[in-house]
Amino acid sequence: MSGGETELVKYFAAKGKLNAVKFPIGIGDDMAQVKLSAKSSVLITTDMLLDGVHFDTKKASPEQIGYKSMAVSLSDCAAMATVPLAAVASVALPRNYGSAKLKKLHKGLLAAAKKYNCPLIGGDMTSWDKPLAVSVAMMSVPAKMKPVRRSTAKAGDLICVTGTLGGSIAKRHLEFEPRLKESLAIAKAGANAMIDISDGLSTDLNHICRLSKKGAIIEADKIPISRNAKGLNSALNDGEDFELLFTMPRKKFERLKKQWRFKTKLTEIGNIVGEQSVKIEMKNGKAADLIPKGYDHLKENPKF
Amino acid sequence: MSGGETELVKYFAAKGKLNAVKFPIGIGDDMAQVKLSAKSSVLITTDMLLDGVHFDTKKASPEQIGYKSMAVSLSDCAAMATVPLAAVASVALPRNYGSAKLKKLHKGLLAAAKKYNCPLIGGDMTSWDKPLAVSVAMMSVPAKMKPVRRSTAKAGDLICVTGTLGGSIAKRHLEFEPRLKESLAIAKAGANAMIDISDGLSTDLNHICRLSKKGAIIEADKIPISRNAKGLNSALNDGEDFELLFTMPRKKFERLKKQWRFKTKLTEIGNIVGEQSVKIEMKNGKAADLIPKGYDHLKENPKF
Repeated sequence: MSGGETELVKYFAAKGKLNAVKFPIGIGDDMAQVKLSAKSSVLITTDMLLDGVHFDTKKASPEQIGYKSMAVSLSDCAAMATVPLAAVASVALPRNYGSAKLKKLHKGLLAAAKKYNCPLIGGDMTSWDKPLAVSVAMMSVPAKMKPVRRSTAKAGDLICVTGTLGGSIAKRHLEFEPRLKESLAIAKAGANAMIDISDGLSTDLNHICRLSKKGAIIEADKIPISRNAKGLNSALNDGEDFELLFTMPRKKFERLKKQWRFKTKLTEIGNIVGEQSVKIEMKNGKAADLIPKGYDHLKENPKF
Repeated sequence: MSGGETELVKYFAAKGKLNAVKFPIGIGDDMAQVKLSAKSSVLITTDMLLDGVHFDTKKASPEQIGYKSMAVSLSDCAAMATVPLAAVASVALPRNYGSAKLKKLHKGLLAAAKKYNCPLIGGDMTSWDKPLAVSVAMMSVPAKMKPVRRSTAKAGDLICVTGTLGGSIAKRHLEFEPRLKESLAIAKAGANAMIDISDGLSTDLNHICRLSKKGAIIEADKIPISRNAKGLNSALNDGEDFELLFTMPRKKFERLKKQWRFKTKLTEIGNIVGEQSVKIEMKNGKAADLIPKGYDHLKENPKF
């Protein structure tokens, strides 16, 4: 989200005010939370994946498209440090899609469902003479702790990321592993805020700062750039990394690093600050504004 | 669903076998149910509505499209006699859609959310150079009784419907009122099976019979035909009535009729029978097979 989209989300949240007791987390985070009783709550997210935007049916297999459609929502569960519960999928099928392809798409959905223990329990299918669209809605439950939000970063927190960033479009965006286990370890260690990097580091860090009413300064030469990235800008802005971006006090991060049992790399890249601007310190020592140049869901839309 | 679609749903259910304790209701009903604890469960449904299939952006206002997108899922909640909890919406926006129109679409979603006490708690939006698609996922909770399923009709049950059928396309499909209150009264009175008529009476009655392993005989001259319907065939097959089709013993139905406080009409149209064929008795006294000629989500798709 950036610009028009951020404003729209604010507008939607203001128009549809929620009861904060029944809905502790509403519009604007990775998932929304509903209280069912004093002890029980459920979270939900939804994502629509479109041919030509999130995948290309000419390049990606139906299995890959199915897998990605689930994995994107699983990554939202990871972003909040919650445990996936179940998912439903609705699909709009091009007229020539056929049941063989649809079964492969389903196989991909199921592969992710099984791997991450999040059964596919229902769905809806319709055909039209337009390209493929897949929408997944996923429920999760808290992991014996409060879900970690975007809006709760504290001044002085380290800013950290899992894995490496950029160039996901080469292949990774179709095959990434949602950081569900990593996320639980990070949350347990005491993360104050977290988000999954879907729109790109520059955009997602701006989300955390805006919602937390804080600023940030990150260091260019600390950013873990993926082999597939085309340099720093690619790591900052490409999006669809589906790595975790989180903030926590240094002491807790040091402890987390000692306990870390995962292959996924952990990197500190900067600090949350009180002043509400988001900066990047370049290798030459100069600081520049970190403009959210990541994925804008409404970009190229002339009316926004 | 009919033909190819029914087979596909069977295939999906078989491939993605669910734990029957954790998921008492899975693929193939109006909603799926997840147990959260001994006392607590949540149900979920999803529907994708497409321009040119479920609405026509040239004729329907954005508010109407938003309202319908929520109402279709609310009708699924009614079909199971459950209480709506919260919804999320994902939208694929044509490039020229613009924020003014999107706000109107949101207004329509909210109108239904408020009217039926089912807050919209999250969503996702993306733009593409293709027509509008709106996918809503909705959660509900049981209404202090078990959700009423499609698969539990008993031989000897009356077959009953709310309201009148056919011709919904004239207007009603954009403005219908999901039968949430009616459904709770029907379930309390002891309905054995229920479904909302989304695909058309002929198709939806076949769903109940197939899943219940029963048959049915309905009487043509008992079918409550809507003023907008073009005769009997239209009432049987048009679909998108979003009325309730339910089965219950005659004694219970007589009691229900006495207690009925709603404007919505209640009509008995036939009986569930043991023999697994679905028949309609015409005015001339001859019985014919009631072929599912209602909406097939995959029709006109040459590959199915």
